[in-house]
Amino acid sequence: MRITVLAGGVGGARFVRGLRHLVAITDLDAEIVVVGNTGDDAWVSGVRVTPDLDSLLYALAGVNDEGRGWGREGDSERVSDELRAYGVGWPWFTLGDLDLGTCLARTALLRDGLPLSAVVERLAARWPLGVTLLPATDQEVETWVHVVEDGRDRELHFEEWWVRTRAALPATAFVQRGVERAVPAPGVVEAIAEADVVLLAPSNPVVSIGTILGIPGIRQALAATAAPVVGLSPIIRGTALRGMANACLTTIGVAVDAAAVARHYGARAHGGLLDGWLVDEADADGVPGLETGGIRARAVPLRMTDDAATAAMARAALELVR
Amino acid sequence: MRITVLAGGVGGARFVRGLRHLVAITDLDAEIVVVGNTGDDAWVSGVRVTPDLDSLLYALAGVNDEGRGWGREGDSERVSDELRAYGVGWPWFTLGDLDLGTCLARTALLRDGLPLSAVVERLAARWPLGVTLLPATDQEVETWVHVVEDGRDRELHFEEWWVRTRAALPATAFVQRGVERAVPAPGVVEAIAEADVVLLAPSNPVVSIGTILGIPGIRQALAATAAPVVGLSPIIRGTALRGMANACLTTIGVAVDAAAVARHYGARAHGGLLDGWLVDEADADGVPGLETGGIRARAVPLRMTDDAATAAMARAALELVR
Repeated sequence: MRITVLAGGVGGARFVRGLRHLVAITDLDAEIVVVGNTGDDAWVSGVRVTPDLDSLLYALAGVNDEGRGWGREGDSERVSDELRAYGVGWPWFTLGDLDLGTCLARTALLRDGLPLSAVVERLAARWPLGVTLLPATDQEVETWVHVVEDGRDRELHFEEWWVRTRAALPATAFVQRGVERAVPAPGVVEAIAEADVVLLAPSNPVVSIGTILGIPGIRQALAATAAPVVGLSPIIRGTALRGMANACLTTIGVAVDAAAVARHYGARAHGGLLDGWLVDEADADGVPGLETGGIRARAVPLRMTDDAATAAMARAALELVR
Repeated sequence: MRITVLAGGVGGARFVRGLRHLVAITDLDAEIVVVGNTGDDAWVSGVRVTPDLDSLLYALAGVNDEGRGWGREGDSERVSDELRAYGVGWPWFTLGDLDLGTCLARTALLRDGLPLSAVVERLAARWPLGVTLLPATDQEVETWVHVVEDGRDRELHFEEWWVRTRAALPATAFVQRGVERAVPAPGVVEAIAEADVVLLAPSNPVVSIGTILGIPGIRQALAATAAPVVGLSPIIRGTALRGMANACLTTIGVAVDAAAVARHYGARAHGGLLDGWLVDEADADGVPGLETGGIRARAVPLRMTDDAATAAMARAALELVR
């Protein structure tokens, strides 16, 4: 069975780990391909950071900092402390030393001329991840955020908006810079076309899944695949459990509501993306409306408290379209 | 009194520290300007390293690793270990974490558009160095080394030749890439022109002092200054105490000998650079010949075993032309 997952960072990583756990405990003969968001990627002082891909890598390798939610377990900040001591620093951005090691390894390979997908393959080879990790695209397509700050229109890199302002500065739009020149990374379209099922992880619908869908060719591949497409709601009881998806949804005019996100993705039967959609039990009242609208829906526990709970979610997603 | 020193890395740093010590213990009213070699500078995986300037900075700040001879005291290699774990690494190059902090701070400032001299000023402001540190030039003028490796002509960056091959691969030439477009950094020509004395530290005559002299305008400034120019031999008893100057001198056809190095710089009276030259007591037999050739010379202990010994060397250099 071939399972392809579109995923953002921390939430996506947790979901994929649960899916991998499901495969392990059920002896399912499954190949998992994860298409990771690259819209958060940034050049910081000449170093290429790819936050979502690294969150996926670290979580799948089991070296992530579970408590903090990002970065490497047991990391230190010797290099960052030095930057601050020089009064240079990354004022709104901190990279641990181990994390920086990943970033410098990636930067070295990119500067050697490797495309991002080849770099991800090289870095991922360090650990037995049990999944194939692909960036959505090899091109640099970074998400920039239109804001009004101190009375003036500005554009911030998504990472700055997210980390420095904690997404509190109202955004008026998200722009994928350079997206018109982008193509899906090698293997992405194939992974969607040849899948037995495609899952949209419970990631940010705007700046994670939405960004992946914005790469020309990916939405088309989803529309064309014979595989059913099932999403899991990142919104429970009208709020995002992780990250700050609330602000992102508000910006694009979508209600912060599990069913509203499904309608935003749209029913495949009516030109949208979804065959199925899972909402949390707390949002069960939205299920009949979704089904009427052509999206098979079910309410199940959607809190990814541990791998077992997350595996149950993944199982529910697979069963929804079986 | 204005003292301007042309200096390479570790040896230059040790000498300047001794000179600073002399100023402190004698209550000399002196301003010290150090012009540091930039020929070892390199881009490594998108990070700008400036080994000689950093050796000067760390030694003058008192944070250098005295035992190892380079880098920061108490440094760790968490980032480098990560690079190796990914199979990327800098195979012939290791940067400690604290050292990398300096490099990333510099890289950030350079990428913000600051010239190297402004970057050095910013970084140096962290500590009360007691001297003004200037790069020889703001332009990227890197030293490349012609070698024959595995039977083929190659050019290596100086750092690779120095660190990877330990200067053991015979060099046929040193080339300063881009030197024709370089100008002295702001303050360098002034520091030479307005000095009361100019000292050539006991640094590598080829790839440290020689590289500084190769920047168009610096040799001319030395020829034109009213200040006497005094050098200290980095060669004692026919060998270099630090670094691998032997191989460099051999490459350019200069004997590895204290007096030969002075003749290589040349007597100012005959179109060269030197008014005075200090050799070690072990090389006293070369003194009469140098004096005949127009270079005031004296034999004194030239081993920089500690700040007091080095201060005595600096004092002898100043006294030679008083």
